[in-house]
Amino acid sequence: MVRFKQRDIISIRHFNKEELLYILDLAKQMEQMDNTELLKGKVLASLFFEPSTRTRLSFESSMKRLGGSVIGFAESGVSSAAKGESLSDSIKIVEGYCDIIVLRHYLEGSAQLAADVATIPVINAGDGANQHPTQTFLDLYTIQKTKGTLEGLTIGFLGDLKYGRTVHSLAYALSHFGAEMYFISPPSLQLPNDFIDVLKDRKVKCHENESLRGISRRLDVIYCTRIQKERFADPVEFEKVRGIYRLSRAMLEEVGIKNDLKVLHPLPRVDEMDDSLDATDFAVYFHQARNGVPVRKAILAAVLGAIA
Amino acid sequence: MVRFKQRDIISIRHFNKEELLYILDLAKQMEQMDNTELLKGKVLASLFFEPSTRTRLSFESSMKRLGGSVIGFAESGVSSAAKGESLSDSIKIVEGYCDIIVLRHYLEGSAQLAADVATIPVINAGDGANQHPTQTFLDLYTIQKTKGTLEGLTIGFLGDLKYGRTVHSLAYALSHFGAEMYFISPPSLQLPNDFIDVLKDRKVKCHENESLRGISRRLDVIYCTRIQKERFADPVEFEKVRGIYRLSRAMLEEVGIKNDLKVLHPLPRVDEMDDSLDATDFAVYFHQARNGVPVRKAILAAVLGAIA
Amino acid sequence: MVRFKQRDIISIRHFNKEELLYILDLAKQMEQMDNTELLKGKVLASLFFEPSTRTRLSFESSMKRLGGSVIGFAESGVSSAAKGESLSDSIKIVEGYCDIIVLRHYLEGSAQLAADVATIPVINAGDGANQHPTQTFLDLYTIQKTKGTLEGLTIGFLGDLKYGRTVHSLAYALSHFGAEMYFISPPSLQLPNDFIDVLKDRKVKCHENESLRGISRRLDVIYCTRIQKERFADPVEFEKVRGIYRLSRAMLEEVGIKNDLKVLHPLPRVDEMDDSLDATDFAVYFHQARNGVPVRKAILAAVLGAIA
Repeated sequence: MVRFKQRDIISIRHFNKEELLYILDLAKQMEQMDNTELLKGKVLASLFFEPSTRTRLSFESSMKRLGGSVIGFAESGVSSAAKGESLSDSIKIVEGYCDIIVLRHYLEGSAQLAADVATIPVINAGDGANQHPTQTFLDLYTIQKTKGTLEGLTIGFLGDLKYGRTVHSLAYALSHFGAEMYFISPPSLQLPNDFIDVLKDRKVKCHENESLRGISRRLDVIYCTRIQKERFADPVEFEKVRGIYRLSRAMLEEVGIKNDLKVLHPLPRVDEMDDSLDATDFAVYFHQARNGVPVRKAILAAVLGAIA
Repeated sequence: MVRFKQRDIISIRHFNKEELLYILDLAKQMEQMDNTELLKGKVLASLFFEPSTRTRLSFESSMKRLGGSVIGFAESGVSSAAKGESLSDSIKIVEGYCDIIVLRHYLEGSAQLAADVATIPVINAGDGANQHPTQTFLDLYTIQKTKGTLEGLTIGFLGDLKYGRTVHSLAYALSHFGAEMYFISPPSLQLPNDFIDVLKDRKVKCHENESLRGISRRLDVIYCTRIQKERFADPVEFEKVRGIYRLSRAMLEEVGIKNDLKVLHPLPRVDEMDDSLDATDFAVYFHQARNGVPVRKAILAAVLGAIA
Repeated sequence: MVRFKQRDIISIRHFNKEELLYILDLAKQMEQMDNTELLKGKVLASLFFEPSTRTRLSFESSMKRLGGSVIGFAESGVSSAAKGESLSDSIKIVEGYCDIIVLRHYLEGSAQLAADVATIPVINAGDGANQHPTQTFLDLYTIQKTKGTLEGLTIGFLGDLKYGRTVHSLAYALSHFGAEMYFISPPSLQLPNDFIDVLKDRKVKCHENESLRGISRRLDVIYCTRIQKERFADPVEFEKVRGIYRLSRAMLEEVGIKNDLKVLHPLPRVDEMDDSLDATDFAVYFHQARNGVPVRKAILAAVLGAIA
């Protein structure tokens, strides 16, 4: 039996296939539902030690659209961390003020630490380069919604696959659904070997490539991420790879794609995906961002026990 | 027929006389009304890329007093603009989290851009030196309320008339009501010539002066704005004009005024209007600031279609 | 008759014994009560010109758990003070947007100034080194709750007694209840002499000590505060005193204590109290922090007249 009540949401790896589907199904119900009072009287503490508009605003909107309320901060400068307080102390105090904590923190492992300390549920809204499970839930929801299913898809991950936490989490989650995966990146930003091993252990067919050319026609989904200039010791190297990993309408037409390809991106984008794509049916990244609301409503309602 | 439902509020120039009066009338009703649940379940995104206490807090108070809720940020440092995201992308995403957007941005034209991109209504809460229409609505409301009418008044605008967006917008709006206008400023901060032409085309009797002396007795209203030191190449020049444009009780008594003169100021003031004036019947600037609530309640309710 | 309706809460010295007990009793009721709609439709302006997570979040949680809503800012950078506006002007404007103001400001006397200017109630949430009355209410509440009574206790104050506003306010408040007080600090951080005189005038038995040794067995309560390195001209001096005033389980066992000793701390702590104490029955500082909610609910409800 699926049980989310009072559960911490720390890593996508903590959920089995049935649990993933349960949340996606609940998100679908949330999307069709009008505003409710499901979480009336409940208080969410939104603790963002690092700024994030998208995640913070969609959590806060979700809570409010369910009738709940929100306290918190949007950056660490106004938190008591600035006075040298430990995260553990901060959590022990704030949990007295609320019913659930959403935590964004720059340190890996901080969300698990908070969950260990708190007696109320903690939702990880990103802990450094580590995990960001609600992003993965909304990525899954977007794929399921736009492709009709999560089963048996061929997914291309494009860009910085070494540091991108969203890529690692989504690839892991899709391993429950018999996905075939293409990892397309410059050599210096390839998926870590031990993570490839994890996926292979989970029976995922993995391929590594340096370009979309030759494989693009096989892809049902492209999950694009940003390549950051700072990752390159030599700016000339960056300029070379840039063109290869910059998605545009013309580039996709040139390499060839399926008619029903969907392109996702966790956003914000800077210049790795130009806006010539925005008006096409391929582009689902804005829908993806907006799916943050039904998905986070589902998670909040389930964890707070407002839904059976 | 006046129609505000789902309409963007970008510039005061987009509204005709009937529409201006409709909002003022609605504001009057709002002022007499107790807290309601008119906007229950509605979410306002309050996106302030530039700080502004007055405007932000009065919008948020208005929304909450009507039963709605608010998400957002108070400065750009915690927005995804800090990560290089375009305003257009930010708007496309945030509109998925809310029912209406209030935008303050340092760039002229940003509000129109946001309105073009969004499918939900956008209210301009100040776009650089350009427009700040809800300020003008509350200025009009304050004048109407304290003078009994908007028709046929003689208004003096004092201070920095070159850069002050509130002056330009209010002068334009008052051109619907047969106002006579005196523009009182140092030569370097005069109203731009092309704006004078706009007003003259609209049949406004315009006068330009360098001092209140000689004309102050004709004025029903003085609209005072701040003269910023930074506008002057020569600090000696600034010190010279400073005294002439600094309102005080003694100064008004000396130049002579009507008994029922009303002095407005968009605030904050620094030292261009000293507090000897605060206790007089002339001073309506604090009421003016507070009128932000009924006026913004009226605009929110009208745009969100909560009022027929 | 005790009367809190529309009253400013500026200094703990403004309340007599009956009034203190009234709030503590109301806090107890609040703690046993479910969320209510007592303050539905009311708006709190939370004006923090200086960051403070604990105080701000617990006030905001209290307001929301009572059905009210909150507007405001968490730091002065986003307030109009950054544009040079006087506190007095800010208050005159903001009071038009809300029903009650909670003010945190770095200047001593700012809360009284705000209360003098405003026609709505002002609650001081800390004005520089001066007062922080709601902290004292929650300190009293915690002592009463964990000791069973406030009458006739022996309290040790430990650490920086010269600058700590929480110590001064709590000592004053406890003078209503026949307390005996030990003030334990390095010579340079002793309680100011004139404040000792105030307490003696109020019939408090006062003792000054440099260490817990020899007196610790007499204490019912230790109220610990932080000793800041910056207070010492000579870092060597700081290192010497540090060990003496750093509470730990081992240190308390060594000097000897009552079995039912309770240790309070206004938090945040840095290293003046190590976490070996956290799991003991002595440690009540996290409960103390959480008591901010029932106590502030009581104060808000009483001042806003929602409770008879």
